[in-house]
Amino acid sequence: MGTQIRTALKVDTNTPAEKQPYLHNRWHPDVPFVGTIRNNETVKIECLDWTGGQIQNNDSADDVLNVDLSKVHYLSGPFEIEGAEPGDVVCVEIQDVQPFEDQPWGFSGVFHKENGGGFLDEIYPHAAKAIWDFEGIYCTSRHIPGVKFAGLIHPGILGCAPSAEILAEWNRREAELISEKAAGGSTRTVANPPLTTNAHAGSADAATAAKIAAEGARTVPGRPEHGGNCDIKNLSRGSKVYLPVHVPGAKFSVGDLHFSQGDGEISFCGAIEMAGVITVKCTVMKNGQKQLGMVNGKSPIFIPGPVQPQFGPGRMLYFEGFSVDENGKQHFLDATVAYRQSCLRIIEYLRRYGYDDYQIYLLLSAAPIEGHIAGIVDIPNACTTIGLPMDIFEMDIRPETPAKKVDMRLAPVSKK
Amino acid sequence: MGTQIRTALKVDTNTPAEKQPYLHNRWHPDVPFVGTIRNNETVKIECLDWTGGQIQNNDSADDVLNVDLSKVHYLSGPFEIEGAEPGDVVCVEIQDVQPFEDQPWGFSGVFHKENGGGFLDEIYPHAAKAIWDFEGIYCTSRHIPGVKFAGLIHPGILGCAPSAEILAEWNRREAELISEKAAGGSTRTVANPPLTTNAHAGSADAATAAKIAAEGARTVPGRPEHGGNCDIKNLSRGSKVYLPVHVPGAKFSVGDLHFSQGDGEISFCGAIEMAGVITVKCTVMKNGQKQLGMVNGKSPIFIPGPVQPQFGPGRMLYFEGFSVDENGKQHFLDATVAYRQSCLRIIEYLRRYGYDDYQIYLLLSAAPIEGHIAGIVDIPNACTTIGLPMDIFEMDIRPETPAKKVDMRLAPVSKK
Amino acid sequence: MGTQIRTALKVDTNTPAEKQPYLHNRWHPDVPFVGTIRNNETVKIECLDWTGGQIQNNDSADDVLNVDLSKVHYLSGPFEIEGAEPGDVVCVEIQDVQPFEDQPWGFSGVFHKENGGGFLDEIYPHAAKAIWDFEGIYCTSRHIPGVKFAGLIHPGILGCAPSAEILAEWNRREAELISEKAAGGSTRTVANPPLTTNAHAGSADAATAAKIAAEGARTVPGRPEHGGNCDIKNLSRGSKVYLPVHVPGAKFSVGDLHFSQGDGEISFCGAIEMAGVITVKCTVMKNGQKQLGMVNGKSPIFIPGPVQPQFGPGRMLYFEGFSVDENGKQHFLDATVAYRQSCLRIIEYLRRYGYDDYQIYLLLSAAPIEGHIAGIVDIPNACTTIGLPMDIFEMDIRPETPAKKVDMRLAPVSKK
Amino acid sequence: MGTQIRTALKVDTNTPAEKQPYLHNRWHPDVPFVGTIRNNETVKIECLDWTGGQIQNNDSADDVLNVDLSKVHYLSGPFEIEGAEPGDVVCVEIQDVQPFEDQPWGFSGVFHKENGGGFLDEIYPHAAKAIWDFEGIYCTSRHIPGVKFAGLIHPGILGCAPSAEILAEWNRREAELISEKAAGGSTRTVANPPLTTNAHAGSADAATAAKIAAEGARTVPGRPEHGGNCDIKNLSRGSKVYLPVHVPGAKFSVGDLHFSQGDGEISFCGAIEMAGVITVKCTVMKNGQKQLGMVNGKSPIFIPGPVQPQFGPGRMLYFEGFSVDENGKQHFLDATVAYRQSCLRIIEYLRRYGYDDYQIYLLLSAAPIEGHIAGIVDIPNACTTIGLPMDIFEMDIRPETPAKKVDMRLAPVSKK
Repeated sequence: MGTQIRTALKVDTNTPAEKQPYLHNRWHPDVPFVGTIRNNETVKIECLDWTGGQIQNNDSADDVLNVDLSKVHYLSGPFEIEGAEPGDVVCVEIQDVQPFEDQPWGFSGVFHKENGGGFLDEIYPHAAKAIWDFEGIYCTSRHIPGVKFAGLIHPGILGCAPSAEILAEWNRREAELISEKAAGGSTRTVANPPLTTNAHAGSADAATAAKIAAEGARTVPGRPEHGGNCDIKNLSRGSKVYLPVHVPGAKFSVGDLHFSQGDGEISFCGAIEMAGVITVKCTVMKNGQKQLGMVNGKSPIFIPGPVQPQFGPGRMLYFEGFSVDENGKQHFLDATVAYRQSCLRIIEYLRRYGYDDYQIYLLLSAAPIEGHIAGIVDIPNACTTIGLPMDIFEMDIRPETPAKKVDMRLAPVSKK
Repeated sequence: MGTQIRTALKVDTNTPAEKQPYLHNRWHPDVPFVGTIRNNETVKIECLDWTGGQIQNNDSADDVLNVDLSKVHYLSGPFEIEGAEPGDVVCVEIQDVQPFEDQPWGFSGVFHKENGGGFLDEIYPHAAKAIWDFEGIYCTSRHIPGVKFAGLIHPGILGCAPSAEILAEWNRREAELISEKAAGGSTRTVANPPLTTNAHAGSADAATAAKIAAEGARTVPGRPEHGGNCDIKNLSRGSKVYLPVHVPGAKFSVGDLHFSQGDGEISFCGAIEMAGVITVKCTVMKNGQKQLGMVNGKSPIFIPGPVQPQFGPGRMLYFEGFSVDENGKQHFLDATVAYRQSCLRIIEYLRRYGYDDYQIYLLLSAAPIEGHIAGIVDIPNACTTIGLPMDIFEMDIRPETPAKKVDMRLAPVSKK
Repeated sequence: MGTQIRTALKVDTNTPAEKQPYLHNRWHPDVPFVGTIRNNETVKIECLDWTGGQIQNNDSADDVLNVDLSKVHYLSGPFEIEGAEPGDVVCVEIQDVQPFEDQPWGFSGVFHKENGGGFLDEIYPHAAKAIWDFEGIYCTSRHIPGVKFAGLIHPGILGCAPSAEILAEWNRREAELISEKAAGGSTRTVANPPLTTNAHAGSADAATAAKIAAEGARTVPGRPEHGGNCDIKNLSRGSKVYLPVHVPGAKFSVGDLHFSQGDGEISFCGAIEMAGVITVKCTVMKNGQKQLGMVNGKSPIFIPGPVQPQFGPGRMLYFEGFSVDENGKQHFLDATVAYRQSCLRIIEYLRRYGYDDYQIYLLLSAAPIEGHIAGIVDIPNACTTIGLPMDIFEMDIRPETPAKKVDMRLAPVSKK
Repeated sequence: MGTQIRTALKVDTNTPAEKQPYLHNRWHPDVPFVGTIRNNETVKIECLDWTGGQIQNNDSADDVLNVDLSKVHYLSGPFEIEGAEPGDVVCVEIQDVQPFEDQPWGFSGVFHKENGGGFLDEIYPHAAKAIWDFEGIYCTSRHIPGVKFAGLIHPGILGCAPSAEILAEWNRREAELISEKAAGGSTRTVANPPLTTNAHAGSADAATAAKIAAEGARTVPGRPEHGGNCDIKNLSRGSKVYLPVHVPGAKFSVGDLHFSQGDGEISFCGAIEMAGVITVKCTVMKNGQKQLGMVNGKSPIFIPGPVQPQFGPGRMLYFEGFSVDENGKQHFLDATVAYRQSCLRIIEYLRRYGYDDYQIYLLLSAAPIEGHIAGIVDIPNACTTIGLPMDIFEMDIRPETPAKKVDMRLAPVSKK
């Protein structure tokens, strides 16, 4: 009665992630269970930050510039969810997410165009970084003065393991994309196929580990069949998410905690990344996929928690974007292009206060901006909007108030 | 003192739109002024519905099927905004939008794939229609039983006229898109170039009208330089929108009133279209484009009004979508594809209650669904979410509550 | 199909209220019906402002000073609600409330201490007035510069007629209070007993009218058995209110429309009073009092509408009040005393900007302030709070921002 | 850089509170400092629950029945706030409040009428208890089935020490009330005068401790000059509260943490009481009382945090109350009487689901109900409303949905 909540998994922030057998960084049905969560049980699960500790709390962007992207996304799990079978749904209630008490900080990074990149890398190719300090529900950054906001804290990644069939389909379709783009002459990395380098298969034996390394799906994209790295900012504390189950026991994993994130997570390493602990309650809905109309086992649905930071609509400043790119080229109903334009409009707006463009890029990634698809049918222009909460700024940024320019360029940006 | 607000423009719903000289349906700097709005003045402006009255309050989709899309978007205006000059910004405060008191209804339509189409026309090619009845702030439809919601009432189109240079750029880039797509073998209509058929140049003399018909930009897409047909659902009553001015006197026009709309307005004629009256206050910000950081005169920004319908976050049901299309094909960071998947997930979910797919398609277009760009950097999958407010339904649609299927297929769908 | 909503009652703002037989200003079971509203029907009902037109749109407080309080609260009705019987509940959905289009203004008044008084009349005995101009959803006042807000528009009075028994009980208990207070030496008016002067019994014949004048309950207080003059600010458009029925046909009346009001309506004539039209849908719940647990037929319950103006919690400035009065006297858990202190604290705070105390008193009555009972058990101090939405002010009134005093004393205050 | 937040005070839940010298339970200027908080510093402060551990996590109400009310409200502090002097204001930002990780539960109690009492003790004289279990942001109670809600977590008490003059005034006015009520024949305890029994003066030497015991103000009521035991539910995490300073160094104390509370905290021990830790940032505003218009140094003001649980207005069910008491007696504009009626109406409503009245009484105390002063000027009836968030219930409690009665009487109630 009133006993403490069980901690189902502890991580060690002083040991390399690859040495911790209850972590893994590939999606594969054969990664061994790390433990069992009973139906309806609430547990705490500790998680590393998504880079496994590669980024330091300092004033240089070199660690972001040189980050090893084969050593990321060490997930905690997979857990057996008692009684879960293919065709079921696991309802995961995210009771809370907290940073470690002795590590009250996180980071946002802009990756270099040649090592990770991001949504605006054609325009902003350099690496950059901001460290955020946590004080209770709030965060501030010495690298981006003049802003403070409450965290919309959430896991970037959670999901159940794919079945062998689903995994094969993932590999097929992503390989197809790679082939097509290569055939079309693109030199851009368009997807990450299986990679043996630094694959972490948890506690799998050597043969299984080799199989997982050879076949396992990379953790970067979210995928419709299980959610995964969905990076949804309001899948936050208090949420209930309904995850389709594809293998016996579900093999539920979680990681990549974010103190806050803007819609789009535009700088890729853009959320406020942190290590910490997530509290979840797992409940099995037998035959849930049919009950919820999840045709072909997809996709997760969720109901957000009731405690997300509230700004009145009259305190949001919205920026329109259309699918005409920054070179004047017209695209056809391309919401991605339109969203980039909304981002650029905010950069132009906030630059007037003395911020460096990279600071704003970092801020848009980390702060709870609201990115909407406004119109998607008026050919040829998709229209998107981004709502910027004016209350995260110390200064009054309303359009009526003349902007006062002060040099605030404090975020480290790589020379390269 | 306390006098009535001036009605700056009246329309006649019994006369064909093309006969009303204070309307126009092309964006062109030479459309003559219909009147002047003083700086800081509040006026009422009447508007036709966007089809100019082609759609009837009946139970057949034939009018939608056969709609003449060259006779739409008759805008009220253009108005001279006293003192506005290129480089300025006009701040338009939308004090209210109301349907005509003697016409308390509107419509949502799905266009036929071969006459207008829409976001899901590959899957749902037929025409369909729903009539909505207004009772104060609320609307219901005899064609979509079981739903009721408060309007998030707004104009689909508002903006200032382009300069000759901007108009030329619009025509250049849209023509280029058409050429490229044609060269690539596409048979899809990808943009609407200038069209003399049914061009309405307001009160222009014959020579000017011919010029406008030959060069004037069509009203379908919104465009970054002036907003135009942006179809932004929360640019609603109480909002302030900051419109860049490109010609002397601004030449401000408005029209295409919506009683409500979901993010994306996915069925194209998807908002609840209506005729009515908009009350606006227009204020000139001298040199506003520079002050607001509108580089190259783009794009409009806005602050929503404080009275949009509120649903607690715990009453929103979110559906994830990823950029893998319904045929299993992987697309690269394509938010448009992802958004279509979010829509399809909702159709699958709501179908369980007995709705026809077309009804849900209509509903998603009309109800205040929240469409977000969640993650746009995790290659190759863009992730979008759509939040569906559960409180618009009479029945309890929470995932935990088993769905009870009842035949509710009442919306007219074309046979063709 | 799609026909206009029926207007069930029209008023004439150019004719004295007492001459209009479809109005009445007493609660009595014998006031004759003015018409019938069918079960589930939506109708429009026009209403006079609560003073029946005594207050003018000018810059003098003389009309407020000299108001005839025996000629107020002319209610529209009573209506027969088809099928309603004692023991039932009528669910009234307030679909909308609007001022008359040709009368886009309202007023707030502070009554003189000797003619009406108000919550702070011991401190502010004079009469005062503010005229408010409506522009769509917003209002401003030339008498209180620097503020603007969206209306939280609602009827001050609505309810069903009392039965003869309930009416007798009202008269008994209010007479008892008068006797007790008089016995205790109080000279203050503590209740308004039946009064024949200016009693308006609708279309009653002479004998019935005389009975109604002699027995009819005054309209000033709300009462638990039917609601009546409850003056609840968020019983606003979109609300559903469940009214107990005490006589056959319900005899539903409505009036006293408010464009906006703060919790408490502290200056008595404090809401923004206006004439206009209310749209309601009436639905009978048979045996509803038992079903809703309304023991002894009391009291109304309601669910607010979804479109009330939203301010984020971080934009509300709260003022604490305790039940120690302005003379330092300690009261015992008296929330009324505490609330007065919260009001005084706001007056002290806002005075620093150059407002006259009467202006703030008027503003607190009219603007959507949030008045809470915070603690009611920590003897001997009740604690109340009032939340003041900072976004209704043009200037930045956050505590951190130094107040700049400017003379803004523009509201007319009586010399007497 | 990024170091942990300093814990300025630790409590020991295994040692009697009276043995812990950094606690105190009287307001007096001579209680010695327990430490210093630097200007702008953020610290963590641990706090006992308000009974100092008297209530057990079990299924009996005996501990509540027999609680020793002279041993409560052990506050953590007082702290010196660096640089604070009389006339200043300390802005305390409540960065977070959390229960102890190893004690994830709290309690709500109804005191017996003869030992503490509560708002409804005339009707509900027995003692009762509910234990609440915390799971992240949520709580549930095995004693009140069918409800679950997110905490609106806050300190019940915080404030700076009174000066000697203010303390004397407190004692004067509260003694006067006691005398008056006694003279009037009341036998009810109306205030708690200084009491030497179990006075805890912190680390004061014997002489000072005796003085403090003899003169020190009891902690039960909040008071206008410093706030103190204000029990304001939305003075929650993220809030900024502006506390007047009356002695050098401020002598800031805090305690009585609540996981959640309803407006009024009606059962006295009604919030969900817990031990835990509060994180605060303290900033001195020099001469702040004058700057904020705090005439005679009163009262605190605050701005709530942005993360309070959100319910849409359409999900709140409001109950009206008027100042006619449960015996039919008419009171004069007495908001306290009206509020009691609103409470009783909810009890009658919820009783239909099978709850015992004491359970509902406990629930109204603990859950985030919204208590408003609606109308306070319509003589003789004050009108209050209480909004009950329907989303805290598992079952659908909308008026339209017939109530299904199930026996849920699980809360322990004393026999006495």
